[in-house]
Amino acid sequence: MKYRRIKRHVSPHIKALADAQKIAFAPLTFQAVATMLKFGILEFLDENSSTVEQVIENCGVSKYTAETLLEVAYTCGIVVKTENRYSTSLVGAAFLHNEMTRVNFNFTNDVCYLGASELANSFEKAEPVGLRKFVGDYETIYNALHLLPKSMQKSWFEFDHFYSDRCFEEVLKIICENSPSQIFDIGGNTGKFECACLEFDKKLKVNMIDLPENIEEAKKHLKNERLNFFGLNILKDNLPELSGAVFMSQFLDCFSEEQVVTILSNVKNSMQDGTKVFILEPFTDKQLFDGATYSLVHISLYFTCMANGNSKMYSEKRMIEMAHKAGLKIHKKHENIGVHDYTLLELC
Amino acid sequence: MKYRRIKRHVSPHIKALADAQKIAFAPLTFQAVATMLKFGILEFLDENSSTVEQVIENCGVSKYTAETLLEVAYTCGIVVKTENRYSTSLVGAAFLHNEMTRVNFNFTNDVCYLGASELANSFEKAEPVGLRKFVGDYETIYNALHLLPKSMQKSWFEFDHFYSDRCFEEVLKIICENSPSQIFDIGGNTGKFECACLEFDKKLKVNMIDLPENIEEAKKHLKNERLNFFGLNILKDNLPELSGAVFMSQFLDCFSEEQVVTILSNVKNSMQDGTKVFILEPFTDKQLFDGATYSLVHISLYFTCMANGNSKMYSEKRMIEMAHKAGLKIHKKHENIGVHDYTLLELC
Repeated sequence: MKYRRIKRHVSPHIKALADAQKIAFAPLTFQAVATMLKFGILEFLDENSSTVEQVIENCGVSKYTAETLLEVAYTCGIVVKTENRYSTSLVGAAFLHNEMTRVNFNFTNDVCYLGASELANSFEKAEPVGLRKFVGDYETIYNALHLLPKSMQKSWFEFDHFYSDRCFEEVLKIICENSPSQIFDIGGNTGKFECACLEFDKKLKVNMIDLPENIEEAKKHLKNERLNFFGLNILKDNLPELSGAVFMSQFLDCFSEEQVVTILSNVKNSMQDGTKVFILEPFTDKQLFDGATYSLVHISLYFTCMANGNSKMYSEKRMIEMAHKAGLKIHKKHENIGVHDYTLLELC
Repeated sequence: MKYRRIKRHVSPHIKALADAQKIAFAPLTFQAVATMLKFGILEFLDENSSTVEQVIENCGVSKYTAETLLEVAYTCGIVVKTENRYSTSLVGAAFLHNEMTRVNFNFTNDVCYLGASELANSFEKAEPVGLRKFVGDYETIYNALHLLPKSMQKSWFEFDHFYSDRCFEEVLKIICENSPSQIFDIGGNTGKFECACLEFDKKLKVNMIDLPENIEEAKKHLKNERLNFFGLNILKDNLPELSGAVFMSQFLDCFSEEQVVTILSNVKNSMQDGTKVFILEPFTDKQLFDGATYSLVHISLYFTCMANGNSKMYSEKRMIEMAHKAGLKIHKKHENIGVHDYTLLELC
């Protein structure tokens, strides 16, 4: 009996069963980490290797709370144990000190957790059914952001900014190598790239293109004689004549494949001779780190259940196929941009 | 630059960051598996190594659905890929063919997922705040079971029965070695153990003790001249005189430590000379398989947010401490009962 059990213990099947339980209880693990962060337990154990009694005293929690959470945390590798003292592990510390992990975790917790229960429905309807739990019948999250609960908004913006703001300097050096007459930023959002452009080259003309409501918002705090605004719906309205450089940063992943091809075709049709198109994306097939690939493919699920129901993070391979369909050609690839292995595709 | 990245790639910090992302996106991974099960994708890939196109055709899903889910599933190890064909991995197959995994997963999905977002509140109030989302102001899930949505009820009972029904034969052999005059089953629930007793030994007298409402329910389908019923609240009411054997199967984990000591003290005070007390539990510190320990400590979180807000799966060490506090002594330990490493403690 014992022998059989010990033999089974090391088989790949038994390992697979253990891995399967990690997924089977994943939402509870997740909420246990959220609770330990909320109660300051991870932070306390990160600074002090402590007994259960010290956790109870210092974090002001019940014995039941401390013991139950520490058992889960130990089993999941969030804390380590030496004799009867617990400390936060490297994995646990990531939730405290690694900005990417912190931002991803809060994003899942505040923006995605409840809506994710509608993932299957969202795929079936190709609509963000999870979003409807919070804001009623809105088509996408982008024009409903102001309606979201405050903590949800905060985590959304932290997530949004964390990923998009870290490549601008590196990217501008590349774009400006060719000394373009002007830059068109499609999907300018809050105008952070516009500010970076105006600062980077004091002669550069900058054009921000976005939905009319976003442009109205941006106009309130952005004023510069070298900055023009175009409020339009990229899927329906005509683009202005595009010369110099066209830039799209983490913009196309907000659209379905059909829509990406439409957008790139519209861009192609509005381009003058010599215009270069720059697409900046973290591609799923171009990540050096396993954690980054893991994050990107899961962010796709956010698009499904919360954002718009039909977009995703793309592979470079797929993006190039879509660009070709739209009549664009790859001129150059700039890889490993920023700290998250973004790719800047240069097309003409 | 490349060199630095490759060096960082293998460091424990980078490994920890990847592990942290697994937790940071855990609820989305979980819902992706639920969706693949719902759409029949895991089942199809378990029988057929297939391309994305074949998944689309055979499971009736969009290209977007198939690609997005397969990317997540591949990154999580739920499916494996050979060239351009996907198959369900050993981990993925556990959700289809391993009853424990299936039961745990459905339990988390249907019973715990939404309520788990109230985990921190539940710890703070020592009440199952998650349960309130479904049934209003009920103190515990036990007397609110009939009010739960149907799918939730189904998964709850499947989970309940899966764990408690598999040891009865083995346990009865041990209990009846001493030829007890009668058996008292405290927390008889639906009466499954009572039926097993009556069948096992045709002369044995059996006494079922449970809350009055459960006893009324049990009386409807259980009738036997050797079977007596006692409807009472174990925390408040007096027990009858206990002789022969007292049995508690996965009963004490539904109570807080203080309550367990109270219950065991009440039992001790009602025992006649020679009465044996048998406690059957899967103890957290007695599991041979990592997956089993993982499951048990996470089941504790279900008790917190959904069941009663103050109970948990205990270690053997702690249970023996509580028994000692109640004045009971360990007579024997019977280990590795059933397929899930249950322990039967024999006390006097």
